[in-house]
Amino acid sequence: MSIRIAVDAMGGDKAPGEIVRGAALGAKEYSDVNLILVGEERLIENELRSPDVGSLAPEVRERIGIHHAGEVIQMGESPALALRKKKDASIRRAVELMAEGEAECVISAGNTGATVAACALLLKPLPQVLRPGIAVSFLTGNSVCTVIDVGANIQCKPAHLFQYAVMASVFSHYILDIENPKVGLLNIGAEAAKGTEILKKAHELLAESNLNFVGNVEGNDIHTGKCNVIVCDGFVGNVILKLSEGLSFHILDTLEKALEAKRPEALEDVRAEFDILRRRNDYSEYGGAPLLGVDGIGIICHGSSDRRTMRNAVRVAREFSKFQVNKHIVAELASLNT
Amino acid sequence: MSIRIAVDAMGGDKAPGEIVRGAALGAKEYSDVNLILVGEERLIENELRSPDVGSLAPEVRERIGIHHAGEVIQMGESPALALRKKKDASIRRAVELMAEGEAECVISAGNTGATVAACALLLKPLPQVLRPGIAVSFLTGNSVCTVIDVGANIQCKPAHLFQYAVMASVFSHYILDIENPKVGLLNIGAEAAKGTEILKKAHELLAESNLNFVGNVEGNDIHTGKCNVIVCDGFVGNVILKLSEGLSFHILDTLEKALEAKRPEALEDVRAEFDILRRRNDYSEYGGAPLLGVDGIGIICHGSSDRRTMRNAVRVAREFSKFQVNKHIVAELASLNT
Repeated sequence: MSIRIAVDAMGGDKAPGEIVRGAALGAKEYSDVNLILVGEERLIENELRSPDVGSLAPEVRERIGIHHAGEVIQMGESPALALRKKKDASIRRAVELMAEGEAECVISAGNTGATVAACALLLKPLPQVLRPGIAVSFLTGNSVCTVIDVGANIQCKPAHLFQYAVMASVFSHYILDIENPKVGLLNIGAEAAKGTEILKKAHELLAESNLNFVGNVEGNDIHTGKCNVIVCDGFVGNVILKLSEGLSFHILDTLEKALEAKRPEALEDVRAEFDILRRRNDYSEYGGAPLLGVDGIGIICHGSSDRRTMRNAVRVAREFSKFQVNKHIVAELASLNT
Repeated sequence: MSIRIAVDAMGGDKAPGEIVRGAALGAKEYSDVNLILVGEERLIENELRSPDVGSLAPEVRERIGIHHAGEVIQMGESPALALRKKKDASIRRAVELMAEGEAECVISAGNTGATVAACALLLKPLPQVLRPGIAVSFLTGNSVCTVIDVGANIQCKPAHLFQYAVMASVFSHYILDIENPKVGLLNIGAEAAKGTEILKKAHELLAESNLNFVGNVEGNDIHTGKCNVIVCDGFVGNVILKLSEGLSFHILDTLEKALEAKRPEALEDVRAEFDILRRRNDYSEYGGAPLLGVDGIGIICHGSSDRRTMRNAVRVAREFSKFQVNKHIVAELASLNT
């Protein structure tokens, strides 16, 4: 059965060029993927005719459709306001296609808030889910650590945090191939009595569940491999995401410049390590961040996404659909309620 | 006039050796500093007789006193409980000396929670101060960014955040030599309407004040030089502190090992940059983190502090006292209230 993926072709700093090209590369790689590129028809057609993409076999090209949308929500716009005003915005149209059953997945590298708001507005939550959450995966040495939520829900109740743990565990299992994901609750100390009342209650819920809960973890544990899922509210998660990007950029950039100035030939020898470390804090590596908990598949990519990111996002969206992650989330939540 | 500094000689992973030696180096450097080393008398005396410190001139040695304390609060202990049980704990005795007017400052590299709790228990808050906050300074390129609070107060009201901005501005001005410190409110987006109700209200208070408020900032702005003070609640601040340490350690360690394996001679050439970057996320560089808002001077050092940290902490404690930072904080808060 084919998987239909709607791509917001106009979202992202490098849209539509890199977005269209990367999505097309994904379609080339997976013969069961049908793309719907949503946005300014002429621009998208131009991109599909560009030399980079021109080599697409007819068999691939015929799996790529275009759905015209005449407006774009810019990065700086207020999501709620822009969605109300711009009925023909590419991200809105893409999510509508999914809501209407024309696509199984949506991918966007545009305004994150607008993508989340469009999904929240146009899609139903999965049964029993209280709040959707954005999950971002960081590569850490030999493992992957998924942090949820990074910005959909900035004031979490204990039950929200608990459901995030369930949803990210299912995601880690089916998409990241982690057998029995270890779950940590982000806190300011290891003891169960640490933190706010909300966190103490969330700790109780997690400890009583059949999740592989390792207890409270701290900020540094994102990089220690202590757990595969870290649960926190969307405010803290957003700070983590931006701080990680900013700090790793700062350190890598400083060292790269120093090596370039003093030992350019040595830099070449460790270029691979620089690249790996850059990617560890760049969630495009894992094909974007899924919005977990909605009845649909929304993959949010970084604004700076390039073709590599988009190709990865197509892979993740495809697997998300193929492995029926949402069905497993619903089953897991239902089993916990009995 | 001499400045009397009580040092918790038993606090820290490298206590008492590095703690005593570093403090003694500070006393050697500043002839107006009188030390009171608090802890196990025999151990401290042994350290003062060690070859490293043995070269102290009699003039320096006579400015170093010992105050015996028979107990130590360990790193893993619950602060409140330990303070109640261990009446003769070195950190408790050190803060008592300050409360009784025998010392102007306390420095500890021991259990952070115990130091904060001892100060909260035994010292008065400064007039008008609602909650003390821990301020940690990060070196960022050519500037310094002080984050407050990093763990004293995990649930902040708008007025707490506002007062943190005032106190850290005064600290940055007098101790870090920043003329008119730029203050940012940590949030998940630049717009004034972002974040929780608490943050929106805090934004209002800051915008109406005469502080040099630059508006909302995000996690990456700790390293962009956009501001000199970042205000957040102690939960988020604690995550920032630990994530920064963990991530920078992870990146620097990985690159250092790669260079060592492939280009050991090149590593030598960029060793200085590695050291600088390590220190940027190691708050010992700025001589520890002051607990701002109490009627006294409490300097909290990292558990891993060595003699360099302790010497720096003596310098900061001395300047804190000399430049009458607390007096300026009180004046600034009073002027804002009229």
